[in-house]
Amino acid sequence: MKKQMLFLGVLFFLVAMTGFAEESIDSLTTAMDMVWLVLTGSLVFFMQAGFALVETGLTRAKNATNIIMKNLMDFCFGSLVFWMIGWGLMYGADTLGGLIGFSDFFKGPMGDPKFYRDWFFQVVFAATAATIVSGAMAERTQFKSYLIYTVFISALIYPVSGHWIWGGGWLSKLGFHDFAGSTVVHSVGGWAALMGAIVLGPRTGKYVHAEGKIVVKAFPGHNIPLAALGVFILWFGWYGFNPGSTLSGVSTDIARVAVTTTLAGAAGAVSAMFLSWIWFKKPDASMTMNGVLAGLVAITAPCAVVSPGAAVVIGLIAGALVVLSVEFIDKVLKIDDPVGAVSVHMVNGVFGTLAVGIWGNVDGVAMGVLHGGGWYQLGVQALGVLTVGVWAGVMSLLLFLAIKAVVGLRVSGKEELMGLDITEHKAEAYSGFQIFSNM
Amino acid sequence: MKKQMLFLGVLFFLVAMTGFAEESIDSLTTAMDMVWLVLTGSLVFFMQAGFALVETGLTRAKNATNIIMKNLMDFCFGSLVFWMIGWGLMYGADTLGGLIGFSDFFKGPMGDPKFYRDWFFQVVFAATAATIVSGAMAERTQFKSYLIYTVFISALIYPVSGHWIWGGGWLSKLGFHDFAGSTVVHSVGGWAALMGAIVLGPRTGKYVHAEGKIVVKAFPGHNIPLAALGVFILWFGWYGFNPGSTLSGVSTDIARVAVTTTLAGAAGAVSAMFLSWIWFKKPDASMTMNGVLAGLVAITAPCAVVSPGAAVVIGLIAGALVVLSVEFIDKVLKIDDPVGAVSVHMVNGVFGTLAVGIWGNVDGVAMGVLHGGGWYQLGVQALGVLTVGVWAGVMSLLLFLAIKAVVGLRVSGKEELMGLDITEHKAEAYSGFQIFSNM
Amino acid sequence: MKKQMLFLGVLFFLVAMTGFAEESIDSLTTAMDMVWLVLTGSLVFFMQAGFALVETGLTRAKNATNIIMKNLMDFCFGSLVFWMIGWGLMYGADTLGGLIGFSDFFKGPMGDPKFYRDWFFQVVFAATAATIVSGAMAERTQFKSYLIYTVFISALIYPVSGHWIWGGGWLSKLGFHDFAGSTVVHSVGGWAALMGAIVLGPRTGKYVHAEGKIVVKAFPGHNIPLAALGVFILWFGWYGFNPGSTLSGVSTDIARVAVTTTLAGAAGAVSAMFLSWIWFKKPDASMTMNGVLAGLVAITAPCAVVSPGAAVVIGLIAGALVVLSVEFIDKVLKIDDPVGAVSVHMVNGVFGTLAVGIWGNVDGVAMGVLHGGGWYQLGVQALGVLTVGVWAGVMSLLLFLAIKAVVGLRVSGKEELMGLDITEHKAEAYSGFQIFSNM
Repeated sequence: MKKQMLFLGVLFFLVAMTGFAEESIDSLTTAMDMVWLVLTGSLVFFMQAGFALVETGLTRAKNATNIIMKNLMDFCFGSLVFWMIGWGLMYGADTLGGLIGFSDFFKGPMGDPKFYRDWFFQVVFAATAATIVSGAMAERTQFKSYLIYTVFISALIYPVSGHWIWGGGWLSKLGFHDFAGSTVVHSVGGWAALMGAIVLGPRTGKYVHAEGKIVVKAFPGHNIPLAALGVFILWFGWYGFNPGSTLSGVSTDIARVAVTTTLAGAAGAVSAMFLSWIWFKKPDASMTMNGVLAGLVAITAPCAVVSPGAAVVIGLIAGALVVLSVEFIDKVLKIDDPVGAVSVHMVNGVFGTLAVGIWGNVDGVAMGVLHGGGWYQLGVQALGVLTVGVWAGVMSLLLFLAIKAVVGLRVSGKEELMGLDITEHKAEAYSGFQIFSNM
Repeated sequence: MKKQMLFLGVLFFLVAMTGFAEESIDSLTTAMDMVWLVLTGSLVFFMQAGFALVETGLTRAKNATNIIMKNLMDFCFGSLVFWMIGWGLMYGADTLGGLIGFSDFFKGPMGDPKFYRDWFFQVVFAATAATIVSGAMAERTQFKSYLIYTVFISALIYPVSGHWIWGGGWLSKLGFHDFAGSTVVHSVGGWAALMGAIVLGPRTGKYVHAEGKIVVKAFPGHNIPLAALGVFILWFGWYGFNPGSTLSGVSTDIARVAVTTTLAGAAGAVSAMFLSWIWFKKPDASMTMNGVLAGLVAITAPCAVVSPGAAVVIGLIAGALVVLSVEFIDKVLKIDDPVGAVSVHMVNGVFGTLAVGIWGNVDGVAMGVLHGGGWYQLGVQALGVLTVGVWAGVMSLLLFLAIKAVVGLRVSGKEELMGLDITEHKAEAYSGFQIFSNM
Repeated sequence: MKKQMLFLGVLFFLVAMTGFAEESIDSLTTAMDMVWLVLTGSLVFFMQAGFALVETGLTRAKNATNIIMKNLMDFCFGSLVFWMIGWGLMYGADTLGGLIGFSDFFKGPMGDPKFYRDWFFQVVFAATAATIVSGAMAERTQFKSYLIYTVFISALIYPVSGHWIWGGGWLSKLGFHDFAGSTVVHSVGGWAALMGAIVLGPRTGKYVHAEGKIVVKAFPGHNIPLAALGVFILWFGWYGFNPGSTLSGVSTDIARVAVTTTLAGAAGAVSAMFLSWIWFKKPDASMTMNGVLAGLVAITAPCAVVSPGAAVVIGLIAGALVVLSVEFIDKVLKIDDPVGAVSVHMVNGVFGTLAVGIWGNVDGVAMGVLHGGGWYQLGVQALGVLTVGVWAGVMSLLLFLAIKAVVGLRVSGKEELMGLDITEHKAEAYSGFQIFSNM
């Protein structure tokens, strides 16, 4: 009897211990997820600096302070309104048949660590979409009008299409795959950027009528090293953006995503550089830098479901696409996008989203046409591209037209000539330096 | 009998296995803590670059190399003396009734991984306190005198008050709460900055007597994009500073801290921008950037014990405070703090520390007055603010006076005019560029 | 009988549970390793920005775009060829008696997460070796020739000696210890840099015959703040480079490595600064910055096997070595290395590798002469230094001579005078700024 009591005691102890072990393992897994998302989210935050520097470096010195202020404040306003409203529309309880989320506004001090973790990781993505637009509207937009735009994209435009894909909405139910946001983030920002550039019109002196035809002028950027630093920071931050989008610190996809991201970025630079070399006779620095970004944007949707080889192919195509698109938009459409934001983020956001349906093939599950996965996935991807494009394009067009009508969107010609640093902020960016800003 | 032997064997195996599991889980938890503190410590290290760029960008081009050298060398000297002496005073065995630690100087090759982990995480905080001072003393301090100061703050001033709060000293025993160092780091640096600026006196030409009154001149910074990059780097690094201060990779507070940090920084920018817009008619870039930093400094103490909503309120107040304080110190007190270091770090370090006693309320434990927590916590916070202020203020005042008396603190008027790059380092920062540094 | 059945059931459950726990613990450990290597690998990637900025800042404004392009493209080409060929030579199946690896070229979509993890961590090290060379060849190398070089070092030179040490080759079998790559990465890059500088010859106007002797001219860097930011970024990235080289997120060495890295970098700055102060009468900024890098390179091999005190000593020696070496190479050998890359990476890579055999002493295992470890380790370290030096030196010498013979290595004198930004890329780095680039 005593022996049996002892057995029972030991068994009881063992059950308690294994229960304890299981619970500890769950806690550790939860902790891994939190550490992973906070660290990668911080990397994505740092991309704000990258966007600011790329845009600053590729434009003129007389507008540098203004650009800095836009890029800083779109994060600051964006994160506040994403806390107040955006999160609730994107990740709140699904309603209207998958069209929108609606709950959890101004979410407060509840003790759920997972809410805090997820909100932090998502707010830096929302801010990325917002800041993309800034570059396309550089050097001629009123500061206050830009602030109004930034509130609306972060509170409304981004969250709604985001809900369709990442918030459990209708596109996600169809099987639409956008791992880290080629569509959710980049093409949404890119469509808004296109509409902003159209509604604003080109910078003064960009397209000049001369001898019966239109001469397209180039305004070279004032600080290539700063722009390049921005590209490096963006690439660095992309190792948060893409691998972090596993949303789990114990995912076995993390490293694969880092590898495909690396190869696509590198391949994008290589093809953009060679194409610019052939076309313009010299390897062009700003085209090459946009080639990196194009490769990174394009791999963002498919990064977890393609092989290294496919990542290289996607990157090579993206690098070529960005050069062709920049030239087409500038020379043919005559839309003035000072930094090539539309070509990088919209064109390659669309391409990357479709790439899932072409090259997708992971661990034996063929999603892509080229791997015998059939046309369904590509069809769903195209549907997502289209509907999100219509949503983001139409909404931002209406928004910019409304801002233009009510408070004005563009600075005066005289202000544009003087530079927005002086007229909008009463401060030069480079006090003391002798600078002749080109027209 | 055989069956019982089998039972015993299986039981023995199970006990061994659960023991092994428990040990493995402990090892993993230990590993999580180490990875977390090394990664977040590295982020805090990177803040050194942020401080260097903010100070460089907001001052004149002729002193940029000097500023870079100060910011680089205060970390280098600081980390060496913190290893030799500072650590032992801060985290050594508590003595003199909680006033000071005293052991573990020049701590050597003992095989304790936890010592290495903790030292690494702490040295980057010590270096932050040291480097804050640099900005307030910019453009007129002898390089060698700055090095002497930096040795003393890292070896003595910072560690002693740090011991009171984080080293198990008397303030910690009273329940003083400073999660990540609004007081330990920022206000200590801020008080020393104030004393340095007072003992040095203003830059030549800053306060000019004209027509019977004193005209306050502004010396605009020479590189706003660089300063803004510094702000982004500091914000990025703050995701190490605050979340890392959980001191544990399995803490469930990590994400909450990241969220409150984000919202307070954003809110600080917003209120500083609007206040500067109303007051000076234009949204001012350097005020807005200081608004970000003010919000981040203020949330540093309470980041783990306040709700997102409270974080927004704290940030909004901090942003307003920094604008008011910069104007008050410059226009009323006529103390010349070129980058606003005192307003950012001392004023908001004090405010953030008190904020714990006002808005503190986490998981049902009310610390703050506004949540029915009574006045005890706010009283202790005020006591800490006061005693640390007296310690850091008096000690750094004596230090600067002693340096002034023995080796001199300020460069000559002619050297100041030429710029410290040439006179202290025989090198221009921007060789080849045409620059007219304003007086 | 029933009771026994119950016992059996509980036992079965417990065995299953402990098995499950063990498996979960293995998964968590695997996840820790992956998260650790992806995050630290990302930090190492970011060092590319640091190298680009240091080289840009320490050279002339007229070549800044070219330097940016070289530093960007060596990573892009390097990572592609390291995927195609380099990885297979370095980590493929050991063959020819430890001389080379040979398998796993163009490694594809196999589902092994560990391959992805390891490849990502290794590619950023390969890219570091490649980019070191850029600085020594700055301001006079044809862009296309640099691209050819970069393909060969990443595909062949780096992987082969890398195989000897990290890929299981002959040096590793002898017990050669190079924790994070003083030899594998830095001295390989440094030897190639030396050969490149020799084959190219000095920049026009660097060594001028005047009054029967040779006058050595200095070409000051055009952007010290940018160079300093580069140094901070490199130091930050080194917390990935060295601690990440534990290759395991559960290693107890991680923090020790972070501490020795910090102290050696700091000590390197201090001794370089003081030596330059004594020698040149002023604390020199570029020497001090190189002192940081020298200390970091030197601690890279021994970082896991020396005490904090030894790290300080190693750093102090490294800082002095870099100043002496820069002066010796410039003034005595008259080899033109614009940024001191050979002194930082080759000289201190060699010194750091030998330091293992001098100060190595960890947890009671004496490797170093000074700790009674005998001469064997130092002998093996010297053998590795010698053989890797011969391999990297001879191969890169042949490579540069071949490039020179076939496509040309150097730009024309006129192009050099105009600056490579205009002649190689048709773009100024600082459009609008008034700059007088010194000869």
